[in-house]
Amino acid sequence: MNLIKKTSRIKASLLAIACLSIGVTSITPGAAQPFPDAQASDPKKLGWMQGSPPPADKILRFEDGSYFEFPAMRWSVSNFRQLMPTISVSRGSDPIHHFPEHPDARIDSLTFTPTGSHQKMRWDDALLENYTDGILVLHRGKLVYERYFGVLTREGQHGAMSVTKTFVGTLAAMLVAEGKLDEAKSVAFYVPELADSAFGTATIRELMDMTTGIKFSEDYADPGAEVWAHAAAGNPLPKPAEYTGPRSYHEFLQTVQPQGKHGEAFHYRTANTDALGWVLARVTGKNVAELLSERIWKKIGAERDAYMSVDSTGTPFAGGGLNTSLRDLARFGEMIRDHGQVEGKQVIPPAAIQDIRNGGNKAAFAAGGYTSLPGWSYRSMWWITHNEHGAFMARGVHGQTLYIDPEAEMVIARFASHPVAANAANDATSLPAWHALAIYLKGLNENSN
Amino acid sequence: MNLIKKTSRIKASLLAIACLSIGVTSITPGAAQPFPDAQASDPKKLGWMQGSPPPADKILRFEDGSYFEFPAMRWSVSNFRQLMPTISVSRGSDPIHHFPEHPDARIDSLTFTPTGSHQKMRWDDALLENYTDGILVLHRGKLVYERYFGVLTREGQHGAMSVTKTFVGTLAAMLVAEGKLDEAKSVAFYVPELADSAFGTATIRELMDMTTGIKFSEDYADPGAEVWAHAAAGNPLPKPAEYTGPRSYHEFLQTVQPQGKHGEAFHYRTANTDALGWVLARVTGKNVAELLSERIWKKIGAERDAYMSVDSTGTPFAGGGLNTSLRDLARFGEMIRDHGQVEGKQVIPPAAIQDIRNGGNKAAFAAGGYTSLPGWSYRSMWWITHNEHGAFMARGVHGQTLYIDPEAEMVIARFASHPVAANAANDATSLPAWHALAIYLKGLNENSN
Repeated sequence: MNLIKKTSRIKASLLAIACLSIGVTSITPGAAQPFPDAQASDPKKLGWMQGSPPPADKILRFEDGSYFEFPAMRWSVSNFRQLMPTISVSRGSDPIHHFPEHPDARIDSLTFTPTGSHQKMRWDDALLENYTDGILVLHRGKLVYERYFGVLTREGQHGAMSVTKTFVGTLAAMLVAEGKLDEAKSVAFYVPELADSAFGTATIRELMDMTTGIKFSEDYADPGAEVWAHAAAGNPLPKPAEYTGPRSYHEFLQTVQPQGKHGEAFHYRTANTDALGWVLARVTGKNVAELLSERIWKKIGAERDAYMSVDSTGTPFAGGGLNTSLRDLARFGEMIRDHGQVEGKQVIPPAAIQDIRNGGNKAAFAAGGYTSLPGWSYRSMWWITHNEHGAFMARGVHGQTLYIDPEAEMVIARFASHPVAANAANDATSLPAWHALAIYLKGLNENSN
Repeated sequence: MNLIKKTSRIKASLLAIACLSIGVTSITPGAAQPFPDAQASDPKKLGWMQGSPPPADKILRFEDGSYFEFPAMRWSVSNFRQLMPTISVSRGSDPIHHFPEHPDARIDSLTFTPTGSHQKMRWDDALLENYTDGILVLHRGKLVYERYFGVLTREGQHGAMSVTKTFVGTLAAMLVAEGKLDEAKSVAFYVPELADSAFGTATIRELMDMTTGIKFSEDYADPGAEVWAHAAAGNPLPKPAEYTGPRSYHEFLQTVQPQGKHGEAFHYRTANTDALGWVLARVTGKNVAELLSERIWKKIGAERDAYMSVDSTGTPFAGGGLNTSLRDLARFGEMIRDHGQVEGKQVIPPAAIQDIRNGGNKAAFAAGGYTSLPGWSYRSMWWITHNEHGAFMARGVHGQTLYIDPEAEMVIARFASHPVAANAANDATSLPAWHALAIYLKGLNENSN
């Protein structure tokens, strides 16, 4: 057996799993991107997994890792379940909450100035620029804009990547608001198995706000980076015989070492969310997928089941494993925007929403070195812009977005498959676009009030 | 690396995949069954995959094969997607077709005489006897009975096993009735890649009725049985380095050798359905999951997406890979019972349904040696009882059932996890139970007419 080849295949597959969770890394603005554009990389046109059988060079297999290379990745993000085992996040059997549909044709021609640019860009051009797979805008609960590209449809489910973290953080915030989870208690109080890891002495709040002092590098260029061990542990494929590392997310989390002090700086590290998922499972007796179904998916009038990837012990990947339809992502956002309500029923305590909107520790955020997001903060796994509209958002690698603007009464849900694994790669043509639309919609509010 | 151990693990996993497709094998009636009963083997009580993490001896992994040993199998049949990659069979976004609910409490106390017995058995006792996971009865389109056991719920999806074949046969029958598929043409006419296999010279009708002359043994005691090669080819896990066989269902089908003549006898062989799936994909340009969604799932008012297991090229397992909710299985049955209509809309041409109800070649069926089902026939992957009510059914290993009784205007959908991998193991306490209920419900018809 060619072990080197095998190991390299496994590594490629691990990279893909790991990549599901990256939220922010630094990139060089303006650097040449040697990638085909959105139209040239359209996964439908490229014909991945089409035909009976598909041509050999169009077949994507989980173990090959190439399924997550660009542009093949543009097919994979809408089809994770065909590549790996998954667990359902059931919508239950209650009626769907339908959005009134009032498409606004003027949105496409809105313009904005990308960050660091002097040239205006049209809203619809930005969709291609960002390799958008689907985008939906709600204004005052009405659907005003919806577009799908490539292989994503209204019926499809797309990897939410690190937007998953926001769901997990929100579940934790609910339990805190309900008095079922004490944010001042230590992680070890809830999960004694983590007592000897770096997480043990952190508080639940530090975990929720990612201000733990843990050694967890997401530097893919470093073969010793902890992100590799995390991905290998969580990979649901059979482990190679020579593999001696941790064999599940839970086993991995117990190996995490301390680095720095808890509570001082915000460091975006996926392992925090997996540890939080473990806490939630221990407190509620349900894994994150089951809890997400029970507390959110069944309550927001979701139109279809979502799903999560799982490790080989059935533990859902809390740090990045959620896959959902675009409309259901938007439904979640609208419930948050509406102070935790759906059709008059309270899904999340308003206090939990208000606490998120108030934001996290700005000094801790700045101390983390996120210079591209000045003045922002991070709270319960939400990113708070602290802009004049009080906007806050969920962010996932390759452009996954849930953006809520309370002032404009607007929710934007976007799935994308940008070639660069860093939100910084698409922020310049996304954040100003969201704000430009918010200003436009707020103007409509004022005219109608 | 311990290759023997590894090989044995892989074999165990293959057995499980292969077993999804067995429909009928002979068993010795009355032989002692060394299995715990339904209550003692309840997967909820046994705690498979429960806890954070589950105890080591309660973790079920696809590659171990033990996930499909009894009683662990009772958890797995309701959770295949957590073990392997799958493809969605989307319900689309149209409204759900709701059944009026008129539960009939008298059904539980109905009695019947099991085949070969002299003692009466109660209907509800039979449910335990058959290791039922879920059962639902429709009478004139109304839901009159519904029960769930173990880990299955209304929201859950259960492996339909060989009931999958009936969906595939029905799709073929639709295309024949619509003139899009010519049942008199050869398999090679549609799929030239199969020209050199035993399938090449068979007609589409012979494939649909499983009267092909192909060498395909499902004898698990024989290490050379073709069912092993079929399962290995279709296994979505990475192939071992030493593996040299076919690497997909399509590759396997091309290796199938002739045995006997086409058209003479009915032989229940799973490979026929996979070959038919290939024909359908070639004719329609859609794989079986996509076609099933488009032509059936989106048309019957299904309440949730179904899914199918896939091989490593994304080909759905046409011979046994469907997983569906019990209610949606019943919706399909009710559409068939109602001459192909749902809420007045024609989903399947009535001629296709009538052709199925007319049955297949009884002599060919008898020639196949199915002595436990005297006078039956097989048509378009449906089992036709030719009893006085004209009942016909879909059958899957471990007790999966869709039973349609036109005379009683009754549809029964059942999921089960019987320890014995043969319908013959549960027919004695199932078929007479279905007929006893049919007589009861027919009596209600007559009283109300």
